[in-house]
Amino acid sequence: MTATSFDYTPLLAEGLPPAAAKWNGFPKYNFVGGNNDADQVPVAKLLEASIAVLTREGAMLATYGLNSGPLGYRPLREFLVGKLKRDAGITCTADEILITSGSLQGLDLVNGILLSPGDTVLIEQECYQGSITRLTRRGVKIVGIPLDHDGMRTDAVAAALADLKAKGIRPKYIYTIPTVQNPTGTIMSKQRRAELLKLAEDYGVPIFEDDCYADLIWNGQRPPALYAMSKTNNIIHIGSFSKSVAPALRVGYIVAPWNVLSRILSTKTDAGSGALEQMVLAEYCQAHFSDHVPKLRRGLRVKLEAMMEALAEQFGTAAEFDDPRGGIFLWVKLPDTVDTLKLYQAALASGIAINPGTEWSVNAAHSGSRLRLCFASPSVQEIRDGVAALAEVCRREFGVPSRSANVERAAGA
Amino acid sequence: MTATSFDYTPLLAEGLPPAAAKWNGFPKYNFVGGNNDADQVPVAKLLEASIAVLTREGAMLATYGLNSGPLGYRPLREFLVGKLKRDAGITCTADEILITSGSLQGLDLVNGILLSPGDTVLIEQECYQGSITRLTRRGVKIVGIPLDHDGMRTDAVAAALADLKAKGIRPKYIYTIPTVQNPTGTIMSKQRRAELLKLAEDYGVPIFEDDCYADLIWNGQRPPALYAMSKTNNIIHIGSFSKSVAPALRVGYIVAPWNVLSRILSTKTDAGSGALEQMVLAEYCQAHFSDHVPKLRRGLRVKLEAMMEALAEQFGTAAEFDDPRGGIFLWVKLPDTVDTLKLYQAALASGIAINPGTEWSVNAAHSGSRLRLCFASPSVQEIRDGVAALAEVCRREFGVPSRSANVERAAGA
Repeated sequence: MTATSFDYTPLLAEGLPPAAAKWNGFPKYNFVGGNNDADQVPVAKLLEASIAVLTREGAMLATYGLNSGPLGYRPLREFLVGKLKRDAGITCTADEILITSGSLQGLDLVNGILLSPGDTVLIEQECYQGSITRLTRRGVKIVGIPLDHDGMRTDAVAAALADLKAKGIRPKYIYTIPTVQNPTGTIMSKQRRAELLKLAEDYGVPIFEDDCYADLIWNGQRPPALYAMSKTNNIIHIGSFSKSVAPALRVGYIVAPWNVLSRILSTKTDAGSGALEQMVLAEYCQAHFSDHVPKLRRGLRVKLEAMMEALAEQFGTAAEFDDPRGGIFLWVKLPDTVDTLKLYQAALASGIAINPGTEWSVNAAHSGSRLRLCFASPSVQEIRDGVAALAEVCRREFGVPSRSANVERAAGA
Repeated sequence: MTATSFDYTPLLAEGLPPAAAKWNGFPKYNFVGGNNDADQVPVAKLLEASIAVLTREGAMLATYGLNSGPLGYRPLREFLVGKLKRDAGITCTADEILITSGSLQGLDLVNGILLSPGDTVLIEQECYQGSITRLTRRGVKIVGIPLDHDGMRTDAVAAALADLKAKGIRPKYIYTIPTVQNPTGTIMSKQRRAELLKLAEDYGVPIFEDDCYADLIWNGQRPPALYAMSKTNNIIHIGSFSKSVAPALRVGYIVAPWNVLSRILSTKTDAGSGALEQMVLAEYCQAHFSDHVPKLRRGLRVKLEAMMEALAEQFGTAAEFDDPRGGIFLWVKLPDTVDTLKLYQAALASGIAINPGTEWSVNAAHSGSRLRLCFASPSVQEIRDGVAALAEVCRREFGVPSRSANVERAAGA
């Protein structure tokens, strides 16, 4: 940048988010983000798949859409038809699946066809930060629904829908992460799913089902997807290979009836998602997905247990959490005196990254002393050391926990 | 879809483009789209690159951004620093390059930070259809600037800028494809580039330089990029590997100063572009890009010559065109009596796809009897047969050409 550098400021569109900060690498203890376990990336088998598919079909890279059209590489969509049937009970065809650049592009595309500023949506009160910020940036009004151990509370959904109807407002959708909810880790029960579907049908409101963590349930048992249970095609379902294979691949998908996909497709202006990833994943998954995922889950469970043990050891009863049934994160409650937004800032200065609860919730009062800790990427040793370091910061800033590792300490010591 | 299928229509956002039609495969003679020559995809060497990079760094796929941060895989950005210096005269650092999912995502990202409904931009009167439709959908006012053999006419740019200034309007940018313009194939001369830069600086309007075809100049000689010639950082430059390596990879890039990239980054909500493509391209390009591209150009030139010969043979003097200095398309003028939008419809019914001129222009009067023919993807034989079939349709619909292949025919025969 020189002294004569052009000033773009007066030309910027209104309402942009703040400029990004320069990236300075990962902190020493990184308990944020959907990063996965580097030791569990199936590198050798992905390589085998690359060799097979490139040798056979590499020349097709000359063609946008790989002779499969804009929905994405057909063999990958066909793998998904079988996987979704087997795992989630979903009956669909390859023409009801759109491959996206991660499920994040799925979020943007679905929001793009449905949402305008001033619209209203229902979401789980604790929710993926990226979903909340996407809605906020679009000027959408969010109604947060509290969760319990069975997921989104349908009594609260019923009350919210009735209240909105009384005001003449038809929400654009009910967004839910029903299967390993982010950040609470809950799984919506089948009974609760049926109740939610009934409400959605009664009020004419579609459900936007984000199932991106659903492959990571420890025992592999899950209720059918809302998409599978609906009889009226009122669900838009998104999923991802980020959690089950590797996040950097950026491959996700939308499952929806053609009347939805045809509107989404005309707004997907990228001429298709990356072909190499789609080809390699299709080749890999047909042969190895069902063996890989249980192995990955076992490894993640080991890390979760290390995280829970470290929290118990370092924070004692000051850290409350449920043992989640799957996933890559733990939702932790600290004493009310702890402001996790302040803890986040202090921890980051000490090389520890955490997600403060208020960024993963639309209810600041409920989430202000909560935090999310991701455990898939750091090693077991990093988990132990990082949680100990976090406890140290928390004690210094808030006097909590007063004792750690069975040694009582004075606040500020 | 069942009888009880949910009706999304009343929930759709306003102003969406029409629903997409189902994809039914490619037509027999496909003279549209940026598809490349399947025989020229360097499959064996891409495979070698995949093996090398996955073996060495595959475990990094567990991490969003591959330890390179949100700008994209650093070795690919570093390759681009050297390539842009060598080929386009651009001096930049790896931190002034953002890897995108094709240059199309680049278009969307740049438009997203600069454009609001009612804004004004200047573009070349004949222009890439995707750029025109993107502007139209955003409700942006387009001022079309005519071209001559040296590219965008700067006398017309000067007049347009003066006229807008008199009305109190500051355009958001001047968009140009200066180096193998789409669809005209012209290359903006260095002198013209200097004039355009002067005008841009005088009026405080940035230039959006789309250089996605610039690698495909037959003799490899090109003027410096506008980005290279600017002294005031008032250029945003985008490029692509779609034309030089393979379009289905979906890898492009934005070159811009950090005050622009930092705004773009905070609106790039996809958590990075596909990692496998970035890794494989970086590995491949470091070793083979500079050998591959001249070979590709020679092959494309052969196809262009086949296309020009077939047009001369089938259409005679009815088809006028300049021999373009590079690229993958030919911009053809037919007699004024030919409406190429009607020709396009009739040709498609006969299995021949062409781009009607009005879809690649903002001046219907100028482009109504013009068409764009892409020659990289079809074989030489398909080019010959397809142009003959197109002449047959054109003769049937418009009585033009009256003779083909030196045989005079009655209109409608």
